[in-house]
Amino acid sequence: MNILRVAGDTATPVEDVVASEEPLELRLNGFSFAVLMRTPGDDGVLAAGFLFAERVISSADDIERLEPCTDRDHPHARNILNVTLRGQALGNLDRMLDERRCIVTSSSCGVCGRLSIDSLQVHAPFIDTPLSMARDVLRSLPDRLRQRQSQFDESGGLHAAGLFSREGDCLGAYEDVGRHNAVDKLVGRALIDRALPASSRVLVVSGRASFELVQKAFLSGIPVLAAVSAPSSLAIQLAEAAGITLVGFVRAGGFNVYTHPYRIMRQR
Amino acid sequence: MNILRVAGDTATPVEDVVASEEPLELRLNGFSFAVLMRTPGDDGVLAAGFLFAERVISSADDIERLEPCTDRDHPHARNILNVTLRGQALGNLDRMLDERRCIVTSSSCGVCGRLSIDSLQVHAPFIDTPLSMARDVLRSLPDRLRQRQSQFDESGGLHAAGLFSREGDCLGAYEDVGRHNAVDKLVGRALIDRALPASSRVLVVSGRASFELVQKAFLSGIPVLAAVSAPSSLAIQLAEAAGITLVGFVRAGGFNVYTHPYRIMRQR
Repeated sequence: MNILRVAGDTATPVEDVVASEEPLELRLNGFSFAVLMRTPGDDGVLAAGFLFAERVISSADDIERLEPCTDRDHPHARNILNVTLRGQALGNLDRMLDERRCIVTSSSCGVCGRLSIDSLQVHAPFIDTPLSMARDVLRSLPDRLRQRQSQFDESGGLHAAGLFSREGDCLGAYEDVGRHNAVDKLVGRALIDRALPASSRVLVVSGRASFELVQKAFLSGIPVLAAVSAPSSLAIQLAEAAGITLVGFVRAGGFNVYTHPYRIMRQR
Repeated sequence: MNILRVAGDTATPVEDVVASEEPLELRLNGFSFAVLMRTPGDDGVLAAGFLFAERVISSADDIERLEPCTDRDHPHARNILNVTLRGQALGNLDRMLDERRCIVTSSSCGVCGRLSIDSLQVHAPFIDTPLSMARDVLRSLPDRLRQRQSQFDESGGLHAAGLFSREGDCLGAYEDVGRHNAVDKLVGRALIDRALPASSRVLVVSGRASFELVQKAFLSGIPVLAAVSAPSSLAIQLAEAAGITLVGFVRAGGFNVYTHPYRIMRQR
C-alpha cells in the first residue's frame, strides 16, 4: 500500500507492506461461536488450537470436518470457517453454549469466555518431564525462529511462535498479528498431527510471556517456554505451579530463568 | 522475586522486578460480566474505559458507583470490582446479558463478545477535526511517553498509552500488561472527567496499532493515533474510514503516515 514516510525534514510517498489482519468467524456445527482477529492463512490449525485452548476439543478425534464457507455470495465467505464436531466435543459445545453464549477475542486468548476468577483455573497434569536442554541451544532459539519468520521482516507487525526440539531444531513456526493466535496455530497443528502432549518440545515466542501463553503450554504438556521479552507475574506463578521452565529475555548473550531451572543446567 | 540470570557461561541468582498481572472480575449490578487480565491499580478507570469500549455505557452519567468488593472473607476480594449502572446503561446491560452472556478477554479488547463479523462494525461520527500537529512534536511523543513510564524500565513487561495535546503536553498516561487495558484506562479517565470526545488529543501507544486500538480511538473521537510499532491492515482500513490520522513506527528520526496525513503537514 502507499504510505507517507517522514524522515528528518523529508516526507516521501513509498510503497509499504503491512501485516494482514482480518476477522475469522468460527461456526461450530452451525452456531456462530467466536470471532478471532487473525492473520489469514492456516485457519484450520488456528481453529483446532483455539478450540483446544478453550477446551471444546481434546484431540483430533473430536473434529469431523474443518471447511471454509462455500457460499460464494456471502460477503465474508473467506473469513468464515465451519467446524463440525463429533463425539465428546458435542457435549462440551452444548454445555458452553449454555453457560456462555459467546466467545470473543482479539487474539485468541486463553481466558476467553471465563466469567469469574475461579473459572480461570485449568486442570492439566503437572509437567515433570526431565527434558534437558543446553544453555547454548536455548540462547540460539530466537535467531532460529527469526530465520523462519518469512513475513516479519517485511511488515514488522507479526508475532511468531515456534516449536523446537531440545537440540534446537525447528519443528514448526507460525506468525500472526495476535501472539496467542501464533501459539494456537502451532498447538492446533500438533493436535491434528496427534503430537500432543508435546512433552519433549520447547515453545519459543517472539514477544512477552503472558498468563495465557503459559496456560496454552500447560494444556499442551510443553515443559519449556522461552520468550524473547518479559513474563508477567501471573505467568510466573502458573509456570511454577505447572512444572514449566519459564525463560524470558532470551538473547544471544543470555536469558533469565524464572521457574524450574533444572532443565537448563548444561552449558552445551 | 528471585530469578536465575544466565549471561555467557555464568548463571547468577538475582533479585528481579516483574510486571504484575492479576485477573479483575467486573460485576455489573450483581452480575459477573467479564474477567480482565490486568495490572492492578486504576481499576475504576479501567472498568469505565472497558464498559465504554463495549458500549455498555456512553457517559459518566451511566455509572452510579464503582467500588471494590468489601467482603474481606472473599479470597479474590481485591480483584473484584462492583459497578452499579443507571439510566440507559441498565437497558444496554439487559440486552447484552441476553445476547451474549459473557465477556471475556485477556487484554480488554475492542471486539470482545462479538459473535459475528458484521457485529464488529462500530457506529461513531466520522472524525473531521482539523487538528494540526507539527512533525517535530509527533516525533518526540514516544520519548515523552517513556518519561512517564515509571514501571516500564524496571520490569520491561508493561505497555503504555498516553494522551497528548497537539503541543506535545502529556495529559495522562497509563501502563498495563495488556495494551488494550492501558488505552481503556486512559479513555475511562477521560470519560469520568467528562472529557470525551477527546477531539483535540493525540493517542500514543508503546506497541503496535491493532484494529481494536483504532476502534477505541474512533469511539473516543480522537483524531490522531501514533504507535511506536507497526499497524495492521485492518487498523489502517478502519482509520481511513473513521477519519483518523494513523501514524506508525514513530521514532525520534521519523515515522510512517498511513491515513489522513493532512493533520501533520507542518514541520514545527
